[in-house]
Amino acid sequence: MMSNGKKKKILIVHAHPEPTSVTQGLVDVSRQTLRQLGYEVLESDLYAMHWKAVFDERDFPMRAQTERLSFIDESGHSYASERQSPDIADEQEKVLAADAVIFQFPLWWYGMPAIMKGWVDRVWAYGLAYGYKNAGNQYRYGDGAFKGKRAVLSVAVGGPAKDYSPRGINGPLEQLLFPITHGSLYFPGFDVLPTHAVYGAVRLGAQDMAAAKAAWRLRLEGLFDDAPIPFRPQNGGDYPDQHVLASHVAVGQSGLLAHVADQETVTRAVGVEA
Amino acid sequence: MMSNGKKKKILIVHAHPEPTSVTQGLVDVSRQTLRQLGYEVLESDLYAMHWKAVFDERDFPMRAQTERLSFIDESGHSYASERQSPDIADEQEKVLAADAVIFQFPLWWYGMPAIMKGWVDRVWAYGLAYGYKNAGNQYRYGDGAFKGKRAVLSVAVGGPAKDYSPRGINGPLEQLLFPITHGSLYFPGFDVLPTHAVYGAVRLGAQDMAAAKAAWRLRLEGLFDDAPIPFRPQNGGDYPDQHVLASHVAVGQSGLLAHVADQETVTRAVGVEA
Repeated sequence: MMSNGKKKKILIVHAHPEPTSVTQGLVDVSRQTLRQLGYEVLESDLYAMHWKAVFDERDFPMRAQTERLSFIDESGHSYASERQSPDIADEQEKVLAADAVIFQFPLWWYGMPAIMKGWVDRVWAYGLAYGYKNAGNQYRYGDGAFKGKRAVLSVAVGGPAKDYSPRGINGPLEQLLFPITHGSLYFPGFDVLPTHAVYGAVRLGAQDMAAAKAAWRLRLEGLFDDAPIPFRPQNGGDYPDQHVLASHVAVGQSGLLAHVADQETVTRAVGVEA
Repeated sequence: MMSNGKKKKILIVHAHPEPTSVTQGLVDVSRQTLRQLGYEVLESDLYAMHWKAVFDERDFPMRAQTERLSFIDESGHSYASERQSPDIADEQEKVLAADAVIFQFPLWWYGMPAIMKGWVDRVWAYGLAYGYKNAGNQYRYGDGAFKGKRAVLSVAVGGPAKDYSPRGINGPLEQLLFPITHGSLYFPGFDVLPTHAVYGAVRLGAQDMAAAKAAWRLRLEGLFDDAPIPFRPQNGGDYPDQHVLASHVAVGQSGLLAHVADQETVTRAVGVEA
């Protein structure tokens, strides 16, 4: 990891405009720790960049068809013909250069702030993050353009941990984030680590913030060693038709958790009681 | 429902800029059907309105504190002192006037397009959608400012239904949308109807589109009669401490589905096998 040209690169994508927020406090830890570990740090500070959140026709300066706006067709055309909006192309370049991508954000209504959702909507182009190699869904879930890279969510959560516990009223955090971890990151090929959450972020005392920073630092140290969430790959045999689990797999199970292979890891990371 | 001053009002919040898209085709059905049924139709066409998706300091023209940006504090201050951005206040007024709110959007990365997520982020103010009556979490989940109103998601999904079936590779749609139905709509008090999905929306033939329109029309006719998803209310006895399910409730269950009371409805609407 030393500066011999093989230095690993980590991209931090983050979304909070307030420098003293819990989110930005943890972004500071990321920057500092990752540099100390010998990594090169790339950054997308979405608020500072005035990131365009809304995916619309302005993202396709050279239209494949002008009579009708199809996002998939125009995204595919723009990507394939290298006529994307420069801000989108820049972000794709960063992701492709990175060995790992860290997303740091406050949990707003059980998901990403719109500015970060709009990063996914716009940067995850057809031909890259989906429709990879123009082969339909051949490469999704565990395969794809970002295979070999790691990703992790670092989330500042206003409410208390018990509300997100296995039987907590909000639902377990890792299940609420499944559309992101599984649907948006594992889909284009990332190995996704269990989410790191700081609960009670609305009123966090100095001592709790120090503990939260230390815990996040530990997670960063394990970025390339910790076991990812064992989502089932599409092309590993569990989905013979690439759509539905084989009858001998996850017998008696259905729903989100059926797509996580190792139930012990489910218990620990995905918030379900054994 | 006739025009006698008691005409019910329905707000359609929708997010697709292309008039010939599946989403807009279904919005047309909503407008037409709801008027035929004698309702007054309100609309928030987010792309046409150039809705500001990003929640930021510009939403708080009169700050409670200028040294540090706290979204919760500023949202609460702006709402309580009636100094909100006019676009936010206008949307809140529409929601408060409506008897039901319909959200129509294409499923992008297993969630709302950023422009609609940003509608939730900005319109769901502290003091209204959370922190109602300045009583912390007292009124959440089944209670709150929007109690008595109905809500439903109408989603255009690119992929095939089997990918969203109980053991389908993407996960069941209703579980993927739980952060919206439960976390963003039931939380501030809406009764949320099962989601209406049109699958295979990427390449929908004329006949399939006609069938999809007819199916949606039927759902609209049942808007005030169909049974909502039986999410468990926070203050109905199932959560004695307002945080965690009582031990005698949903015995042996954990995760998202433990918060749905009636397992038969779960099977039908939330996509889990019996």
